[in-house]
Amino acid sequence: MKGFTADVALPIDEAETALRSELPDHGFGVLTEIDVAATLKAKLGVDRAPMKILGACNPPLAHAALELDPTVALLLPCNVVVEAIEGGTRIMAVDPRDLMPDPAFAELAEEAAGKLQAAIDAVAARVPAA
Amino acid sequence: MKGFTADVALPIDEAETALRSELPDHGFGVLTEIDVAATLKAKLGVDRAPMKILGACNPPLAHAALELDPTVALLLPCNVVVEAIEGGTRIMAVDPRDLMPDPAFAELAEEAAGKLQAAIDAVAARVPAA
Repeated sequence: MKGFTADVALPIDEAETALRSELPDHGFGVLTEIDVAATLKAKLGVDRAPMKILGACNPPLAHAALELDPTVALLLPCNVVVEAIEGGTRIMAVDPRDLMPDPAFAELAEEAAGKLQAAIDAVAARVPAA
Repeated sequence: MKGFTADVALPIDEAETALRSELPDHGFGVLTEIDVAATLKAKLGVDRAPMKILGACNPPLAHAALELDPTVALLLPCNVVVEAIEGGTRIMAVDPRDLMPDPAFAELAEEAAGKLQAAIDAVAARVPAA
């Protein structure tokens, strides 16, 4: 999957904290959280690198998209992921333009993409690269 | 957005209960929940039809997909949506084949699609159509 990515030289918990502090400045609240590694450990007994999926929502953009077509709910919220990698954490965000190729959503997807990219860039600008 | 849909003659709370009782029989746990209407009311003051987004996860399929490519986390979990409509509730589930067109995921997406479709069909078979 494509998306926006930054590898930062922070432990995953600190990278998540930095991300959570930047997202609101770009209009996104975090509505959901999945601890992927803990879930797979609990359900399947497997060990994997620490990873969390945060569900980020920009309410005005989500509302506008739902007004255009309520089935867009199948694609909300926007996922932002932190995953432990060698030397730090990989931060990834979905690119809404990839999820919503329908031209009706082009303007909203472009705006959401710009804001997510800016949030990731802002975290990357604050800390050393991994 | 395409996906699997069933319109059932149940109030949204009862449709959600029926859905939550069927999903585990098809291997899906519900990991997240977003009350869309309540969130948009709280954040923007807007009124809209009741709608919830449930994040459903089939751990073995999610694990297999993440082993193939960790960036698939940008597309997890699978959204299942309940929305109040005239005469009942619209239940929708994302079609993972649409989200993951990469041939590497074809088999996993097909299996997840079949299980989600079966869960929706099972709810629809238990209650009158809206």
